[in-house]
Amino acid sequence: MDDAGGGSGEERVPWTDPRYQAAVVELLGLLACTELIAFERLASDCTLAPTLGDEAALAAMAAARVRHLTRLRERLTVLGADPDAAMTPYVTVLHDFHVKTAPSDWFESLVKAYVGDGIGTDFYRELAQLVDPDTRELVAEVCEDTGHAEFAVTKVRAGIATDPRLAGRLALWGRRLVGEALSQSQRVAADRDALVALLLGQVGEPGGLDLTELGQLMGRLTATHTDRMTRLGLQP
Amino acid sequence: MDDAGGGSGEERVPWTDPRYQAAVVELLGLLACTELIAFERLASDCTLAPTLGDEAALAAMAAARVRHLTRLRERLTVLGADPDAAMTPYVTVLHDFHVKTAPSDWFESLVKAYVGDGIGTDFYRELAQLVDPDTRELVAEVCEDTGHAEFAVTKVRAGIATDPRLAGRLALWGRRLVGEALSQSQRVAADRDALVALLLGQVGEPGGLDLTELGQLMGRLTATHTDRMTRLGLQP
Repeated sequence: MDDAGGGSGEERVPWTDPRYQAAVVELLGLLACTELIAFERLASDCTLAPTLGDEAALAAMAAARVRHLTRLRERLTVLGADPDAAMTPYVTVLHDFHVKTAPSDWFESLVKAYVGDGIGTDFYRELAQLVDPDTRELVAEVCEDTGHAEFAVTKVRAGIATDPRLAGRLALWGRRLVGEALSQSQRVAADRDALVALLLGQVGEPGGLDLTELGQLMGRLTATHTDRMTRLGLQP
Repeated sequence: MDDAGGGSGEERVPWTDPRYQAAVVELLGLLACTELIAFERLASDCTLAPTLGDEAALAAMAAARVRHLTRLRERLTVLGADPDAAMTPYVTVLHDFHVKTAPSDWFESLVKAYVGDGIGTDFYRELAQLVDPDTRELVAEVCEDTGHAEFAVTKVRAGIATDPRLAGRLALWGRRLVGEALSQSQRVAADRDALVALLLGQVGEPGGLDLTELGQLMGRLTATHTDRMTRLGLQP
């Protein structure tokens, strides 16, 4: 990538360039792996649900992730990539994230489903601004709210109403989730050159982000995270 | 139910009768619980998958069960029943079945997904013949092959081609699954009067089964089970 420029966009390679194609495969592989591991974790959290209705709602969230996974793997195949190979680099880091943030009860799992997945989705939506229209559309589809955010908010607020001490513990939990997400993102960034090149505008036509824009992106992620914590009734 | 007749149908209560409605709620509750527990088990078996592609395929099977679960719970609500209450009586017996038949490897989980769920689905399809058209249509929809039978057959046959000793172990496993399914069905039958009344034609218009017909039903279940084992390359 030493012939590709920085955020200015002047020396970027176009969408038809193999280096851009490699970056898109890395992005879709990351998204597909995110969906698969999110499915595993939501499914396993089902055992924490206090009622069969709650379990059915969490199972529906898990099933939505599988629909996304299937779409992403189909696209990888269309692009001539091997979906398994594209997903493999992210398995360990995403597993580690989930092991380190295994919820100890139903409320922690709800906060994780809403806050943890929310910040991930926001980040992927930002990346979608840097890719070709077809990929952008697919990423937007995969990042659509699966309609279950409201479920988490309602249940967590009701839990806090019943036991106000819950708010302090869950606020700490929300902060820990973000800290872990950040630390795992850095591991991904250190390993995946093409993805970073995409973010920094070294590949792809619309240009990437310069340092100011990266700062603004972090600001937007933080702001929507704060909104979500507030909606849950938690101190951000 | 002492005013309801046997298989002859002459003294049966009609579909509008509250006793018939109770039987339909029991049936839909059983189906919904079957789908939820099948989802849990398929999702947890995902960790046995040898490749990410295999895991994605099993995850898609799990997600299909959640779609069925959602449809069944919606219908229970439309019928004025509480979906959780309708599902609750079956949780223990279905959990017990899955604990007693926890697969020890990927191939056992595939055989279970195909053979175990197959025999359950066949039985529910038979019950569907005894209910009103709306319920029949929903049961048929839920029993549709989720398109993954072929996946199990291909993978198991390939496994046996690589390691022929697998065939003997999996054949025993298939027989154990049927034995456990039968024993758990008897527990359900002993507990759920309305379901049994439906099967024996004591409620509902189209009439239930007499002893000869019950025997024929068992014969049909056995025949399709044998077909499935043969397709897998296993001695039934």
